[in-house]
Amino acid sequence: MRRTKVVLEDYEIPKQWYNIQADLPKPMLPPLHPGTGMPVGPEDLAPIFPMNLIEQEVSTERWIDIPEPVLEKLLLWRPSPLYRAHNFEKLLDAPVKIYFKNEGVSPPGSHKPNTAVPQAYYNKIFGTKRISTETGAGQWGSALSMACKMFDLECRVFMVKVSYQQKPYRRLMMNTWGAQCFASPTDLTESGRAVLAEHPDSPGSLGIAISEAVEDALMHENSRYALGSVLNHVMLHQSIIGLEAQKQLEKIGDYPDVVIGCAGGGSNFAGLSFPFVRDAIYGKNVKILATEPALCPTLTRGPFAYDFGDLAKKTPLLPMHTLGHDFVPAPVHAGGLRYHGMAPLVSHLVNLGFIEARAYEQISTFEAGVNWARTEGFIPAPETTHAIAAVVDEAMRAKAEGKEKTILFNWSGHGLVDLAAYDAYLTGKIQDYQFSDADMEKALRAIATHPKAEK
Amino acid sequence: MRRTKVVLEDYEIPKQWYNIQADLPKPMLPPLHPGTGMPVGPEDLAPIFPMNLIEQEVSTERWIDIPEPVLEKLLLWRPSPLYRAHNFEKLLDAPVKIYFKNEGVSPPGSHKPNTAVPQAYYNKIFGTKRISTETGAGQWGSALSMACKMFDLECRVFMVKVSYQQKPYRRLMMNTWGAQCFASPTDLTESGRAVLAEHPDSPGSLGIAISEAVEDALMHENSRYALGSVLNHVMLHQSIIGLEAQKQLEKIGDYPDVVIGCAGGGSNFAGLSFPFVRDAIYGKNVKILATEPALCPTLTRGPFAYDFGDLAKKTPLLPMHTLGHDFVPAPVHAGGLRYHGMAPLVSHLVNLGFIEARAYEQISTFEAGVNWARTEGFIPAPETTHAIAAVVDEAMRAKAEGKEKTILFNWSGHGLVDLAAYDAYLTGKIQDYQFSDADMEKALRAIATHPKAEK
Repeated sequence: MRRTKVVLEDYEIPKQWYNIQADLPKPMLPPLHPGTGMPVGPEDLAPIFPMNLIEQEVSTERWIDIPEPVLEKLLLWRPSPLYRAHNFEKLLDAPVKIYFKNEGVSPPGSHKPNTAVPQAYYNKIFGTKRISTETGAGQWGSALSMACKMFDLECRVFMVKVSYQQKPYRRLMMNTWGAQCFASPTDLTESGRAVLAEHPDSPGSLGIAISEAVEDALMHENSRYALGSVLNHVMLHQSIIGLEAQKQLEKIGDYPDVVIGCAGGGSNFAGLSFPFVRDAIYGKNVKILATEPALCPTLTRGPFAYDFGDLAKKTPLLPMHTLGHDFVPAPVHAGGLRYHGMAPLVSHLVNLGFIEARAYEQISTFEAGVNWARTEGFIPAPETTHAIAAVVDEAMRAKAEGKEKTILFNWSGHGLVDLAAYDAYLTGKIQDYQFSDADMEKALRAIATHPKAEK
Repeated sequence: MRRTKVVLEDYEIPKQWYNIQADLPKPMLPPLHPGTGMPVGPEDLAPIFPMNLIEQEVSTERWIDIPEPVLEKLLLWRPSPLYRAHNFEKLLDAPVKIYFKNEGVSPPGSHKPNTAVPQAYYNKIFGTKRISTETGAGQWGSALSMACKMFDLECRVFMVKVSYQQKPYRRLMMNTWGAQCFASPTDLTESGRAVLAEHPDSPGSLGIAISEAVEDALMHENSRYALGSVLNHVMLHQSIIGLEAQKQLEKIGDYPDVVIGCAGGGSNFAGLSFPFVRDAIYGKNVKILATEPALCPTLTRGPFAYDFGDLAKKTPLLPMHTLGHDFVPAPVHAGGLRYHGMAPLVSHLVNLGFIEARAYEQISTFEAGVNWARTEGFIPAPETTHAIAAVVDEAMRAKAEGKEKTILFNWSGHGLVDLAAYDAYLTGKIQDYQFSDADMEKALRAIATHPKAEK
């Protein structure tokens, strides 16, 4: 009987996270304070994040223990199964083996709880009573809602209004887990009221939602803000994906030639790939590939520069690939990939040559996603289809070259609450958007005034 | 580190289904032909089902081999994990251990593919090109859509109209897997047109949808009908759930005092419980409990009688507990439990005293479901909350009696595409319906003209 998956028992779950900062051949540039232009210190971040998470953010320890109460919650769905996609391989008819980590098995259906749970836990032991966050498509907001309920914290989610209206199921998920979800811009914050005063019908944006969530946290006692991607401690928490995958591949004596993940802020991509990037740093021959939407080509076209993480310039200046903090990507269905920037760690490793990037157009990704669903059964999230499109691409290259190849990718989440997007695709209502020269000029203008980041 | 779940490797998947017909202390009554009143033979069923499934329907072999191509597809999500619900146990604060089989890990999110895959396979090798079926909440229709695509069969689903409207995502799932889905009653069949003529606003029912699907299959060449519950071969295919659970419990040296499942047509309930019922038949002390909605109390109030499986009287007369083939349950959110009848095997085992039944009201089941989601993370389907309500009940009884108890139940599916129901509950818009004396009189009238079934 052929083998379809490799599972791990509870006791085989990794007990430590992997911190790639310990293995960087060249150190990262620091985040800068936009006012002073000086590196940001822990005390600058203290009003927003609890100090234990700030310590993780700047740590260069290679292995960091996962606290027991966090492990207990992660075990509700982890270790996630590693699959071999026999049926999709057959469809492609190429000389490839395709493995994937199924992160859709978590309660909200994506990799996001891997960091939501530890963030809620560290806030809890720090003394936080109440966490505010923003969410675009809703994956992060729903994961944090669940995690906060598990550690008895109040959770307030500012959801981009247009998503709030178009994706009711994600909001309902948050409510079911006991969180409050607001359509941003709201009249609960100064930032929100300012936007509403000028544009009463504003559909909202991630930039506005971040501003509201940060302000909401700053305005209240024992309140902190949480971010679901981009930051170093988020990449750290997600490393459990790749560590499990390595254990699972070891069990069957295999190792990938290519490791693939879709990248929005970078967290699911880094989660799977960083343990393999480590191998690459120490000389292993493994290709690491990040994929993104062609209309939001942060890694493939965005310059490396200091830029803000949000529209309202409330974050420190981060050294990253960016399309400009005021870039508003077209409304593609992969909402989780509509971000102007990229995790500084991912950006840095791209600069160092350990990570390649490739962009795919929306229609081709849905085609790959539907073919996947009709062979492997599981319906992927629109974000995940960007990784699958690259798998197809790599398989076709292997076929053309007549070379055998082993591919591993991160199946970051299922698409069961994104089915309206599939409906749009199946009824021919989806279009491809282009990143234009005008978009590029705008990006360059947006970062022109910041300190210069050098690779 | 405490243990949260027991997983099985691919090679540990059961290779045979368990057929409880081999162990019945007293044989079942046969289904009858409504015209002649004589037992139905294989040839009577041949226009509706392929002969290989009919053979399984009447088989009394104890163990039936699972064909290799079926195993290969089942391995996409099976063996499913057996969980220990530590967090929910803590909430209940009762002297109980709670285990559950997580059948929500399948691509459509329920136990239904366990029989959809073999049914599609047997139809395929029989030569069927096109399968018609009905679906209530959409779990069965989506599972069969996926299975048909895997074996390259055309799939047509008649979905109960009230669910079609309340649960658009289920229809979109079917479309994504390449099936056609219609809101029943439709004008595509004589049965549908008859209902619409009398009740243009009919919310539909499983009984009506079955009539339509059977008619649709009979009207076309190389076309067959598939049923997702009730029949013996469906219970057979679902037995893999209980067989896995027994292996998993054996690994940790445990055995349940109570086995619980919600019962609509009986398939998820039988799937988990029949291997344990077998133990009970051979003298083991284990309580088997089926739960149902108070407004559709088939097992707790329905007489045991010969009755039709559908409204239009297109099926044979089945010996079962029934509320009358013309009973249309109130539109509760647990659509999968809105069925007037019950699997003859389950009905028979209730009569023999091996299965108890209990009914729960809708609001109490949602309360249990929300408490579950807020402790264990996973959001249960509304059907599954009827099993959870019984778990709470059993735990409270154990607490009152000061007795330790080990509970095992079937977590038949997740509720991620049923979130509108949770919204209705959380905003106080859900009500409890009663099964009235008038309903009971109507049930007795509906079965009065059929041959008498004797326990």
